[in-house]
Amino acid sequence: MLIVPEREIANLMTRKAAFDAVEKVFAAMAAQDAYNFPVVREAIGHEDALYGFKGGFDRAGLTLGLKAGGYWPNNLEKRGLINHQSTVFLFDPDTGKPAAMVGGNLLTALRTAAASSVSIKHLARDNAKVIGMIGAGHQATFQLRAALEQRPFDKVIGWNYHPEMLSNIEKVATEAGVPFEAVDLPGMQEADVIISITSAFAPSLMADHVSPGTHIACMGTDTKGKQEVEAALLARATVFTDEVAQSISIGEAQHAIAEGLIAEADVHQLGAVINGSHPGRSSDDEITLFDGTGVGLQDLAVASAVVDLAVEKGIAIEVDF
Amino acid sequence: MLIVPEREIANLMTRKAAFDAVEKVFAAMAAQDAYNFPVVREAIGHEDALYGFKGGFDRAGLTLGLKAGGYWPNNLEKRGLINHQSTVFLFDPDTGKPAAMVGGNLLTALRTAAASSVSIKHLARDNAKVIGMIGAGHQATFQLRAALEQRPFDKVIGWNYHPEMLSNIEKVATEAGVPFEAVDLPGMQEADVIISITSAFAPSLMADHVSPGTHIACMGTDTKGKQEVEAALLARATVFTDEVAQSISIGEAQHAIAEGLIAEADVHQLGAVINGSHPGRSSDDEITLFDGTGVGLQDLAVASAVVDLAVEKGIAIEVDF
Repeated sequence: MLIVPEREIANLMTRKAAFDAVEKVFAAMAAQDAYNFPVVREAIGHEDALYGFKGGFDRAGLTLGLKAGGYWPNNLEKRGLINHQSTVFLFDPDTGKPAAMVGGNLLTALRTAAASSVSIKHLARDNAKVIGMIGAGHQATFQLRAALEQRPFDKVIGWNYHPEMLSNIEKVATEAGVPFEAVDLPGMQEADVIISITSAFAPSLMADHVSPGTHIACMGTDTKGKQEVEAALLARATVFTDEVAQSISIGEAQHAIAEGLIAEADVHQLGAVINGSHPGRSSDDEITLFDGTGVGLQDLAVASAVVDLAVEKGIAIEVDF
Repeated sequence: MLIVPEREIANLMTRKAAFDAVEKVFAAMAAQDAYNFPVVREAIGHEDALYGFKGGFDRAGLTLGLKAGGYWPNNLEKRGLINHQSTVFLFDPDTGKPAAMVGGNLLTALRTAAASSVSIKHLARDNAKVIGMIGAGHQATFQLRAALEQRPFDKVIGWNYHPEMLSNIEKVATEAGVPFEAVDLPGMQEADVIISITSAFAPSLMADHVSPGTHIACMGTDTKGKQEVEAALLARATVFTDEVAQSISIGEAQHAIAEGLIAEADVHQLGAVINGSHPGRSSDDEITLFDGTGVGLQDLAVASAVVDLAVEKGIAIEVDF
């Protein structure tokens, strides 16, 4: 079996490879060639850690396995380690034998950024010029860097609960040669594309902060109770997601569903747009919203891509297991 | 992190080490120091395989992780590989980083054998002389070999649906210097201890095949619909198990529960007997029955033990992950 340690991922994996892998597996999910297993997520009662498994099988790409790991909130302060820790394990679907073990930390950031990028490619207006960021943490820099490759944006605007953190995303914009401006929430009306990437339990972005024709990618809500945008915004928008079951239960759509503003049938798979079985955006006035909940198949897809790259470059460690 | 390949397990792991690990983790489960996560088990629609994850956390032993793998029914015929394929992954509960990867095939056989042995140690009469085997497949040889170390048995009797397979367990008995005799099912009345280890969907061992004072370990039922013994036998017996939730839903007790013959409160944790919080056998006439359903914590416990042994002997492969 092959091992690709965490330290090698940054040199191997590209945003392009992550984008392609995520786009392909979303399409496979919508074609029912790939499916995610039930998620296991446990508060283990030690170090306040959340630990669990996200698995799946992609029959089209022949990718089987899981991401295992979670969130250790004391890692950074106590040990100088990052708090999110994960590892991807791939198995040979023909035999059940382990095929590869891959560091999952950077990959998780890249696959999450790829998801909003894929949604922008397929749902944002072609002439989108201004991108707005809600949130300015570490993950926000990944989302913005990837998003800037999807349209020739000429301006980045940003809002964050802690404004002093906006320098994180300003730096990304500047590196890409795009001017940055801090705005208040109503200022988001200027945006053609908005990415929200926060860990909030109450909405920041309200329906009247969003102009007609905008595409919004909600990337922060992956748990019951979390919420980034007003539920009424989902009723105004055409809603897409990675996985419908997660979207309506632990994703951003959970609130609009609970309030009866939208029904499960109103939530569409982004993969269907990639496949061409859903037409996607129908007009320049339509608001589209992608509810990115994060699925195990994304992790498997980027891990599988990185294993291929590691083999190609002779970097994969081979262990006779 | 450390890697212990499948090929090293046979030289490292002993029945004694497996026994001690399983006994300890059953006790930790009953003391609520250790718990199993929800089991993921999926028919993946490829090679007729069943694949999934059994995870858990032992706060006492600081063992965190999962066994991943499953059943690939075409492996042997198509590829000369064994059909059951599994791998154990251990994580550092302080940080969430992967700690070890261990071949899980032989370990699964050893931990399953250890479970019935632990039940015999704590529940069989001290003067048990005759052990009966229902089932004579590959796993039956592991169960018998381990069981013979728990009491000074002077006879092995065996029954199997395919009698020609009884030579498998006869060989184990002979190697241990204990005479073997094939019997019909009513002949099991001679046994003081009975282990059933089959994959049946209808009972073989009936209540009137069992004499007062017998200890029975039902080790084959781990899925809805499977059944090895008559449900009425559970009503006559004092019932113990590894995990109550599994016992009443996918274990041997599922049928007696469904028929209303016993209640959930009638199913006791074997770990409670090990801990001394349940008195265990109360008389020489009592029938005791252990419903061994198989839990992830057993896998983690034996894997953790084998990693210690591999480190001690300098056999663990260290990978800078």
